Amino acid sequence: MTSGTIHGIGLGPGDPDLMSVRADRLVRGARHVAYFRKAGRIGRARRMVDGMLRADVVEHAMDYPVTTEIAVSDPRYNACLSAFYADCTARLAAVTAGGEDVAVLCEGDPFFYGSFMHLHARLAGRAPVRIVPGVTGMSGAWTATDRPITWGDDVLTIATATLPEEELVRRIRDTDALVVMKIGRHLAKLRRAVAAAGRTSAAWLVEYAAMPEQRVVRLADAGDTAPYFAILLIHGEGRRP
Amino acid sequence: MTSGTIHGIGLGPGDPDLMSVRADRLVRGARHVAYFRKAGRIGRARRMVDGMLRADVVEHAMDYPVTTEIAVSDPRYNACLSAFYADCTARLAAVTAGGEDVAVLCEGDPFFYGSFMHLHARLAGRAPVRIVPGVTGMSGAWTATDRPITWGDDVLTIATATLPEEELVRRIRDTDALVVMKIGRHLAKLRRAVAAAGRTSAAWLVEYAAMPEQRVVRLADAGDTAPYFAILLIHGEGRRP
Repeated sequence: MTSGTIHGIGLGPGDPDLMSVRADRLVRGARHVAYFRKAGRIGRARRMVDGMLRADVVEHAMDYPVTTEIAVSDPRYNACLSAFYADCTARLAAVTAGGEDVAVLCEGDPFFYGSFMHLHARLAGRAPVRIVPGVTGMSGAWTATDRPITWGDDVLTIATATLPEEELVRRIRDTDALVVMKIGRHLAKLRRAVAAAGRTSAAWLVEYAAMPEQRVVRLADAGDTAPYFAILLIHGEGRRP
Repeated sequence: MTSGTIHGIGLGPGDPDLMSVRADRLVRGARHVAYFRKAGRIGRARRMVDGMLRADVVEHAMDYPVTTEIAVSDPRYNACLSAFYADCTARLAAVTAGGEDVAVLCEGDPFFYGSFMHLHARLAGRAPVRIVPGVTGMSGAWTATDRPITWGDDVLTIATATLPEEELVRRIRDTDALVVMKIGRHLAKLRRAVAAAGRTSAAWLVEYAAMPEQRVVRLADAGDTAPYFAILLIHGEGRRP
């Protein structure tokens, strides 16, 4: 029997209207749909395709293990996630072994800080995988600010707020344009780093870009916490004829 | 009369199947379509929508002025481009003043190193503008390599090959993952910079990502020239459970 294919499908930043034509077609046609979610939640990716799935779709929810009790630096954290991804990989590979395709729903672009990458790496040699790139969350964010992120020869640095504070300061000082992802509970540290780099007045926080709850505020006006789907932006100011 | 709207539409990296559902709908429905191109060429953006346009479409080709005789550093270069963008802005604003919408075709994402930004800045207060974000050329490029660009806490630096060689070396040394845009005739300089940073063996060149001519080669195996649509990548190797 010929193996089915696993499609890692970038859904874009949030609005289903920003899914690619290919992603839209694959999602609507899929017999098997898989997605990551927090245990007990519907899941952002799943919610984005509400009303688009076949009546006879088989859903494969992949619930992240609860790791809040384990520090990220603890080896058990990695071991726990690794076992989870191995299990998800086995589940999806079993479907393809039966000859059927699986559409894996990925927020943003699958190869840009995405969870699907951890399955992709484990699926090599086990099932054919095809990636559909998507509009990134950061594109959704800078579009929401109604200003270009880069002009001319601007250097754009993309970093995660999980970095140490001093490293964030150094990166923010040494770039024209900036995108910071994975903010969540690191907002206070990020705010201090932006201030230390002297760029608070240029910094914007975009929450839930391209989603119904979208909110664009100056960093100075932001609250003390930010959702996981928050992106910090500093726009480039480069050469412009 | 109510003003028409100018839509800056990201078409994605090349394959029309990677246009967003919204972009696809706007392009197919547009009475007025505008796009930049090199004088004497069909234009990449225009070619991407072949077969999609209305029978009664009005096309507004915006032919870049020939500036090859003027150095980029010469003030006349900027003046020439500035006059060109002002003229394009006036042409499109005249259409919207008549109450009609214009769809401006933009390769990649309009707010990421795009030409449309120069119209957007000039249209403020003259016509309403709406942006449709697109899949970037770099997403198309890293998807073509079949490897994720960033893992965990990787820092991704995006730079243009137009930067001075020493600056490129410094940036390439000081990042986990790298994307270099606008390569073209700067390939030899970029190759030296990657070598000086000690990262040649990790560097890939993707030409015409997501287009029929797509080509992925190691930088070491690349030729002496690259097309404008070439992107250099160094993949991050960060934390992965």
